[in-house]
This record gives sequence, structure tokens and C-alpha cells, in this order.
Amino acid sequence: MKKQKKNKSISISNKFFSDLFDQLFPLNRSIIGDGYNKSLKILNQFVGFKLHKFPSGKKVFDWIVPKEWVIRDAYIKTPNNKKICNFKKNNLHVMNYSQRLNKIFKLKDLKLILNSSKKVPTSIPYTTSYYKNNLGFNISHNQKKKLKPGYYKAVIDSNFKKGNLVVGEKTLKGKTNKDFIISSYLCHPSMANNELSGPLVLLGLFEKIKSWPNRKFNYKFIINPETIGSICYLHKNRRNIKKKLAGGLILACLGGPNKSLSFKKSRKDNSEINKFFEYFNELKLCSLRKYTPLTGSDERQYCSPGFNLPVGQISRTIYKEYKEYHSSLDNKNFMDINNIRLSINNIIYFLYIFDTLSGKIVRKNKYSELFLEKYNLYKNKSSNKLTKAIIYLLGHSDCSTRIIDIITRYKLDFQNTSKAIEILKRKKLIKIAL
Amino acid sequence: MKKQKKNKSISISNKFFSDLFDQLFPLNRSIIGDGYNKSLKILNQFVGFKLHKFPSGKKVFDWIVPKEWVIRDAYIKTPNNKKICNFKKNNLHVMNYSQRLNKIFKLKDLKLILNSSKKVPTSIPYTTSYYKNNLGFNISHNQKKKLKPGYYKAVIDSNFKKGNLVVGEKTLKGKTNKDFIISSYLCHPSMANNELSGPLVLLGLFEKIKSWPNRKFNYKFIINPETIGSICYLHKNRRNIKKKLAGGLILACLGGPNKSLSFKKSRKDNSEINKFFEYFNELKLCSLRKYTPLTGSDERQYCSPGFNLPVGQISRTIYKEYKEYHSSLDNKNFMDINNIRLSINNIIYFLYIFDTLSGKIVRKNKYSELFLEKYNLYKNKSSNKLTKAIIYLLGHSDCSTRIIDIITRYKLDFQNTSKAIEILKRKKLIKIAL
Amino acid sequence: MKKQKKNKSISISNKFFSDLFDQLFPLNRSIIGDGYNKSLKILNQFVGFKLHKFPSGKKVFDWIVPKEWVIRDAYIKTPNNKKICNFKKNNLHVMNYSQRLNKIFKLKDLKLILNSSKKVPTSIPYTTSYYKNNLGFNISHNQKKKLKPGYYKAVIDSNFKKGNLVVGEKTLKGKTNKDFIISSYLCHPSMANNELSGPLVLLGLFEKIKSWPNRKFNYKFIINPETIGSICYLHKNRRNIKKKLAGGLILACLGGPNKSLSFKKSRKDNSEINKFFEYFNELKLCSLRKYTPLTGSDERQYCSPGFNLPVGQISRTIYKEYKEYHSSLDNKNFMDINNIRLSINNIIYFLYIFDTLSGKIVRKNKYSELFLEKYNLYKNKSSNKLTKAIIYLLGHSDCSTRIIDIITRYKLDFQNTSKAIEILKRKKLIKIAL
Repeated sequence: MKKQKKNKSISISNKFFSDLFDQLFPLNRSIIGDGYNKSLKILNQFVGFKLHKFPSGKKVFDWIVPKEWVIRDAYIKTPNNKKICNFKKNNLHVMNYSQRLNKIFKLKDLKLILNSSKKVPTSIPYTTSYYKNNLGFNISHNQKKKLKPGYYKAVIDSNFKKGNLVVGEKTLKGKTNKDFIISSYLCHPSMANNELSGPLVLLGLFEKIKSWPNRKFNYKFIINPETIGSICYLHKNRRNIKKKLAGGLILACLGGPNKSLSFKKSRKDNSEINKFFEYFNELKLCSLRKYTPLTGSDERQYCSPGFNLPVGQISRTIYKEYKEYHSSLDNKNFMDINNIRLSINNIIYFLYIFDTLSGKIVRKNKYSELFLEKYNLYKNKSSNKLTKAIIYLLGHSDCSTRIIDIITRYKLDFQNTSKAIEILKRKKLIKIAL
Repeated sequence: MKKQKKNKSISISNKFFSDLFDQLFPLNRSIIGDGYNKSLKILNQFVGFKLHKFPSGKKVFDWIVPKEWVIRDAYIKTPNNKKICNFKKNNLHVMNYSQRLNKIFKLKDLKLILNSSKKVPTSIPYTTSYYKNNLGFNISHNQKKKLKPGYYKAVIDSNFKKGNLVVGEKTLKGKTNKDFIISSYLCHPSMANNELSGPLVLLGLFEKIKSWPNRKFNYKFIINPETIGSICYLHKNRRNIKKKLAGGLILACLGGPNKSLSFKKSRKDNSEINKFFEYFNELKLCSLRKYTPLTGSDERQYCSPGFNLPVGQISRTIYKEYKEYHSSLDNKNFMDINNIRLSINNIIYFLYIFDTLSGKIVRKNKYSELFLEKYNLYKNKSSNKLTKAIIYLLGHSDCSTRIIDIITRYKLDFQNTSKAIEILKRKKLIKIAL
Repeated sequence: MKKQKKNKSISISNKFFSDLFDQLFPLNRSIIGDGYNKSLKILNQFVGFKLHKFPSGKKVFDWIVPKEWVIRDAYIKTPNNKKICNFKKNNLHVMNYSQRLNKIFKLKDLKLILNSSKKVPTSIPYTTSYYKNNLGFNISHNQKKKLKPGYYKAVIDSNFKKGNLVVGEKTLKGKTNKDFIISSYLCHPSMANNELSGPLVLLGLFEKIKSWPNRKFNYKFIINPETIGSICYLHKNRRNIKKKLAGGLILACLGGPNKSLSFKKSRKDNSEINKFFEYFNELKLCSLRKYTPLTGSDERQYCSPGFNLPVGQISRTIYKEYKEYHSSLDNKNFMDINNIRLSINNIIYFLYIFDTLSGKIVRKNKYSELFLEKYNLYKNKSSNKLTKAIIYLLGHSDCSTRIIDIITRYKLDFQNTSKAIEILKRKKLIKIAL
């Protein structure tokens, strides 16, 4: 008999997220390997993910799971024997998935394997080469400029071995057989907004949704390495995911300073999740981005032609739109830990509304108005918002109309709409079809 | 062998409607009972309705036909023995469907059963309580204020018994098997715009349509008590109404002072009747209201989810938008009898256009242009409006296009369009599909 | 064994078109007969049309192929014995399809058979009466005014006989089984913009498309008398044309002075050819006209209800919009021969884009993003237009999306889009469905 370990508890507080952040930040994450596994293990204390393993070499659609990258050390010795680009001090100094190297370079030749950013000269850039043999060091532009001519020794003590790509998945069961995916990625090394913000927000959402007694959907919380990880997950679930998925959110870059959240719409134009966020946008609760396959996160896989799932992406300070992006400056200073809590609270509101108000109303007796007096529901029709909501919902409850369509048509408020639906369900006058 | 009684004749004149109004106005109508039956009998002299009876207690969808309310007298005796709120002087003084009462009240307690309107202090409000045990008197705010302390005797001599809800229906047969409904209600006691205007206009439309030799539709003229009456009618016809109904108009509040008619669209967004009235609106022949299930008349039943019929509502001075609404001030002074004739003439024009121009054109020979010279139809193509209409209609006559779509696309005038269709039908080049 | 005659070669030069124009201009074309046949024979030296013959009396849909009109001479002798309205000097002087005549008229009576244009008093108008017995002369308004009273002898030496309406059709085979029609008419006598411009442009397009090695469509070049000719062609092909036709262009009035081409949309609202020209219009490469069955050329037959084919019409200086239209002033002076070449170059660009970029992309592996590194296609995603085009196309490649929809959505340039499709096809990652 298996003994179930009890999860550590999550607290939606700055201290909790700040401590967790500090534990996770220094780890040398990549798409496969120790840094990723350790990070996932830390998160897993609070969640209890089921771990799906995909071995190196496994074919997943057009892709092949790569080997694991093992890195022990990397540095450059200057002519006067000083260690620079020291991996042990900052894991961003070495290109992720760099080949092994041990070689003396003249400065001119060394520069060919040094990446830096002229635009943000104090930052160490983040570079990767998962799928092509390559190597390199990343260095701040200011430091690079100061390097003196002479002989440099560059060492990268790395190798590649068969390993396992790991996807963590945790389901909180709901009352229907429909799923809702909340997914984030965990493959960037020491970065904050564009890495740790996603998993931290995911923990917060998990904690909150766990406490919803009547959740409609099976919430699937997913942690994976970006792109290849969601491809693995989709490959595993390719047969059933389409008919079971009501919606999904990819969490990305949720810790930055922007005031409002921004939703990148799913590719499927009239998906219900798009309609909800269009209405949130109308209410000025978030901004909107059109779908594009060019940039973004795992929604690009969920929305690919074969799947076309109703999965969008939610972000605060968006990748590529801030100068600290993909560099050592994307750190705890840039990413206010307070915004993690703010993002959790904003998103949980959206999710709660979606959970409560998605679907279509099916009246048991679909002919004529209902005799509302009989159910004690006909009070102050012209002033009572609840009575109005009841009448609007019953008056448009046919197969072609979703609740969100009625809300949008009459600018109904969520509270009275939810209450109206609750009452009508309790009185067995309607049920909800998804 | 039944002998058919000949109907009295209807004259579209102010005198006719004024006399009829004066006969009908004082009757104490309600949803069931003597006042309703007498009123229907008066109308019936001119029409010859078929009467459908629905006994008290009959289940119709979610509703039950209520008992009949019998009222003989109602009044209040003041401390100095004066009769006020005398039902025999104005039937609005007693709440419709009031329970029996015979009791002495102190003024303070009496006021709990007195309804009045502060906003319109000279009016006696109209109140009802068909489906909940209740009682009350209605009084002008001015009179209420003057009541002196003391003991008041309040008498309502009413009772409830099994009765029959009655729906009157008269069909004028047309050339196709499609129906068009023209319906109004007859359940309000002594009120003008929001009661008698509808049935009076209905009589006028009946008279006019009777004289159309080639009417396309079976016109069904319906008189019923509002809401419960149309629910009864729909219940009776629930199996066939959907496939046979081309359109319908609920007549409501057609006698008030507003300059132009207003059409409340059917809930069915692209219904043909909506398209016609959208074009009438474009031509500034009427204004438009969006569908709502919250307020309105019997169209709420026809447009309910199980039916979703192409039935709109036409009104002039709209319920709730005038201060005399639902009160003793909604009388012949407020409602100019002249507007009854105006409404008849306006609506009959709309109906005639709809009768003539609804449907799709099906060409016998659908390939290429027709050889119009052969039919002597190709005259002055660039200046002759009739030739143009012929060419536009023939050029777009496929299953996905209704005549109204072609009219709207090219801003065709109704006269030449009708003439064009008439000619093309006569020459056996087209037929009309509904 | 048949010996194939070699066609004369076409040169896209002013001299070539100018010489050809001069040969064709004086011929007395009509819908059937010598003038038409000689004109077609001249064009045929360069193309090798297959000739379809439709005998007088043949029923084609609602029409009957008329008899051939034979005209030998026509003139009027003035009182002082001068020949005016001399058909041998200008074939526009006699109404096309005039009956035989030999009669003395007083001036007053003569004027009843003289057509002239007050608005353009120096022009000889062009008139026809193919389908109704009629006769007449056309004369400039200025000349008509000067005619003195007296006796005039009017002679029309014409007769009617059984003949053949001839449609020329030449197919250049493509790589798919889908057709594209390029059609013009050849039935107007000595006129330039509204006659010879179309066939001359057609020759140029034929020459250019012949040289496309990978053309997608079977290009069908069609010359016919306007209206009755395309009706004959459609009648012959009525069974198969709908499922095989990807698009078509009617060439009309392509030689006039207007700066830009104008596309008259096909009646079928969302046809692919409409979408392309809507985008060309967005790029300011052409202007757009809505479909109308009232005016235009053979697109009215192709778009008639039974066919509703994706065939539009392209024009430069549009019929009825210039004062020289349908008169002797529509000549080589009005129609700059240089514009023939310009029209060819403009239209061939549109056709090339349509040939290259019509259809939908079907991915072999439709799930997830493709692993572009594997195909060496993932270079500088954020700056490289080709890589971007590849990603956009793959990201939206499902059955409901045409390539033109993706182009329009992302404002892609044609060059990189074509190159992207070429590469993806070569690497066997996609195929194109039409």
C-alpha cells in the first residue's frame, strides 16, 4: 500500500514567494537535467505532481527529445590569470547546451565565442543551443570592452548523456468531465520575470483553486520545459485532449512592473475563453493581444493546426518588450515579488468567472417564459438586478447562445449572473451544457 | 346546418373607432371573466373569431390557467360616510384579482392597502395580482394626502371561481401554406393606449387585409389576455407553429402621441421580418428596438427559446415611456383616436410590403442572363427603374438570397420591385419560395 | 497524321500591338460573320485557338443563336447627290444588324432613322439591334444639323443567313486539374478601348503565361462575341465548369488613359479571387468595384445564379465612364497603345500572384510546431522575413484558412510568401490543396 506524502502548505504571502524564489533562483535549469529536476522537486513539495518522463531520443511529432546536458564548470582565465565568465558565480555566463571546451585563444579569437549586448551593456545575455552543436560564453558588454590582448584559456567542462525530459502534472478534479489547463515552463536558469514568475503564480493558483468546493473543471496544472515539454505533453494526450478541453492558460512573465495583465488570444477565433477575455478587456480588467505563431510560449503548440485548442497565454510584462529580457538583469530587483501575488489574485478572478459562467444554459422547460412567481423569483423586475439577470438568461437560453454572449449583450455583472444561475440550478429549472 | 352570421362592417373612420372605444372603455376587463368576454363579444361582431377556451387549472407549459375573478363592488367609506375608491365609478380603484374584504381600518392601517403614485399625483394607478393572494385599492396621491384620521370601512365584494380563459382567432386564408400572426391583448380595464389601441388597430388591419385579393399568407388575427393568453395559444399550436410561421406582429400601445412607429425586433437575429423593418428604418419609416425578454408584450412568449419565432412587436407611444402608462390618465384624451387610423395605415403598408416582397426568387432557368428581349422586358436598361429591378432580381436569384437582401443591396424601391416580380411571375420566368 | 502549324510569335512591344491594331481596326465586326471571323483569324495566327461553332437557331439556355448579318454597302445620298453615312468609309455609320433598305425620304422622315449624340456632337455613335428587326444610320450631331431639306435616298444592302457563332478557346495546361479562364470579346466594329484592347491584352497574357514553367492552372484563353458568345461557351461546358474553375478574369476596356486598373468583384462574396483583389486594392495596386448584374461584360453570365463562378472583370478606363464610349471617338488616339503593354504587365503580376499563392496549405505533420532547425529553416526568426513567413504559414495551415487569409492577416509580402511555400514544398513538409 502506497503511503501518500502530505504536501507542504502554500501561503499567498510575499515572504513565502520570496523565500521560494531565493531557493530556486540560483539553480542551473535547462530543458533536461539536474537543475530542472531540482527545481521541480522544490515545487513538488507543495503540489504532488505526477511526473511524466520522456527519454532522450523519443520521437514526439516532428521533434526528438534531446540528450541531457551535464555541466560541471566553465570559466575563462585572463592573461593575468583571473577567472572571468565563471559559471559557478553566474550560470548565465555559459551558453545553455554548450559543447565541451578546453583551449587557449588569442583575444581576437576568443571574442568569436563571447556574446554580449551593446544595447544593455551591463547585462549578461542568456543564450541557448539545444538542437545544434555550439558553444559560447555570455559576458556584459562593459566587461568585454575592457579585455586586454593576450592569451585566454577557455574551459567548458560539459558532456551529454541520455536522460529524461520531465513534465509535472497535477489534477484537481471538478464536477464535470471537462478539463482546464494551467501551464508554465521551468527551463530558464537564473532569471526572474521570464522564468520563476510563472511557476510561482501556478503554485498560488493551485492553492486557491484547491479550495473551490464546486469547481466545474478538472484543473490540470502543468510544469514543463518550454516548447519541447508541451510538445511531449500534447503527444502523450493527443487522442483525447481535444474533446475534453474547455480552455487553458499559459502563464508567462507575470512578475514584471506592468500595471495590467495582457491576454494573448487563442488562435481559435470564437473560442469561449477568447470571448471571456474580450469582455474582461471591455471592462478594462486586462489588455488583449492577437494570436501569432511567431512569438510566445507553449500556447503555440496548443494552438497548432492539428490541435487548435482554446488555450491562450497570460502575461504582465511581456517577453521582448522589456530591456532586461533574457539577461542577468531579469532578476528579483526587476521583478517585484509583490506582483506575483497581484497576478495570482487577478488571474484567479478571471478563472473563477470562467469556471462559474462558461457554458450554455439548457432550460428544462424551454417553451414560453417560466412562471417565475411559482419559484418566488419575480421580484421588482425593473429594479432588481438579480431578477433581471434571471430573465435575460432564461430568455436567451438556447443551444446557439453561451452565457458569456448574454452577459456581453446586456452588460450583466458577474455577481448577479452567477447568483441567478445558482438559483435556477438549485430550483432545477436549468442545467449547464459545456 | 349552421347558419353563418354576417359580421358587422368596419369603417376606417374616427367616428367608428371613437364609438367603439366608448363602448369598450368602461368594461372591467381582466385576464378571465365577464369584462374580457363582453369586450371580445363587441369586437367579435366585426370579425367572427373562433373562440379557444382554456379552463382554469389547465397546465400550459410552466403555467396554470388561473381561476376567474368575479367582482361585484368595492369601495371605502370615510369617517364621514363618504364613498371613495368606488369601483363602480372607476374600475381602476380596485387591484385586479383582489381578494374579498370587509373590514374597518384606522387611517394608518388603511394606507397599507392604498396604492398611489407620488410622481403622477392626479392619476389612479393600475395594479394587478393574478398569481398571488393580495388585495388593495388604487387612489390618486392627491386624494390620499387629504384623507383625515378616523375609521374607514373597506369593502371588496369579490370571489374566485372556475372559468375559461378565451383566445379569439380568425384566419384569412392566403395563397400559400404559410401563416402570419397579428395579435393583440384585451386584459386591461379602463385604459386607452395600453389596451384599446391594440384591438382597434387589429380590427382596421383585418378590414384592410380582407380586401387583398392575392394575399400570400394565412393571416391569423389573435386576441388574448396578455402573457397567459399567448402562452395558451402557443401551447395549443406548439407542434406546427414553427414550420408554418413566416412572421408576426404583436400590436401594443398604438394610440399615443409619438410621431413614428417603433418595431421591437424578433429575437431571431436574421429573421426576414427583422430585415424588412431594418430597411424600413433605413428609409426612416419607423424606428427600431433591440429584442429584450425583460419588458414588452406577447412577443416574449413567441420568441422564447423553445419557439424563437420571427415575431416582433410594433408600438407607437411605448409602455413605460410615458407618465400616463398604467393609470387612469391613459384615457381617450391622452390617446388621440386619430392615431388609431394613422397606425392602421402605417402598419398596413409594412404588411403589404412584407406580403408582396418576402421570400426568395427561384428562376425556372437559372443559367446565364435571361433573354429579356424575348419577353419584351429589355427597355431603357440604364434609365428605366422597372428594367433595372428586373435585372437585379434575376441576377441574384439564388437560394441564399432573399428579395429583401437584393432590395437592401441596391436600394430598390418597393413599387418597381413588386411590379418586376409580378411581371416575372406572370411570364412564368420565376416563382417565389418562402 | 495532322501537321501542327507553328504559331507566329507575339512580341510585347508597342510596334507589335500597333501593327496588329491597325490590321484589326477597320474590320466590320459583329457577333457573327465575316468581320468577326477575319478578326479571329488574325489573332489565331499567334495562338492556335480551337474553334467552337454554334449554328444559328441553336438554343443556348434562354437564348437562340441569331442568324448571320451580311452587309455589303450602306449610304445616304443627299439632295445634291453627295454620299454621306457611307458604311465603306466608316462601318459605324450603319446600325449593326440593320435590315435591308432602299428608299427615298424627306429630311423630316430621314431623321427618324438617324442616331446622333447631342452630348458628343463630333462622334458617330455605335448602335446595334441583334435581336429585334430594326434599321438605322449613325451620324455625328454636327453633320446632322447641317442637313438641308430635300429628298434623300437611303440604301442598306444587307441580308441575313444561317451562320455560325464562333468561340475561340486555347488551353495552356498546368500542373493541377483546376482551370483559370481569361476571356475577352471581339464583336464591336471599329472601336479601340471598348473592343481591341481586350484581345490585344489577351495575346500578351497568353505569351507571358506560356513561359511559366510551373503554372498551377490550366489557363483557358477565350475569345467570343460578348454575352451570346459566353452563353454559348457556358452552355457547352455547363456540366463540369463549376467544379474545375479556380477563377477567371474578363478583360474589358484595358487601353484607356486611366492610371490604375479596376477589378469588378465576382458575385460570390468570399471567392478567393475577390480576396486577392481586395488585398491588391489594400496595397493600392488596383481599385475595386462591387458586383452588379446591370452593367459589365461576360462576367454577368459566369456569375449568373446557376453558375455563380469566381469570375471577375478587369478594366482600366471603364465602359460608360468616358465620353468616347461606343462611338467613333473610341479610336487609337483615345486609346494609347502603350497602355496595352501596361495592362498586360499589371495583370500578369496579379495572375502570377494568384497562380502562386492560391489554395490552402496542408501540413504533412499537422501537430505542434515543426522542428524547423532540422530543415535548416530557423534563422533569425525575429528579423528574417522568409523565416517569419514560414512560421506564419505553418502556424495557420488548416482547412479553413487560405494562404491569402494568412497574407492578409500578417500583411506578408508576396515574394517571401512564395519562397516560403516553395521551400516547404521542396522539403515535403506541405502540399497545396485547391
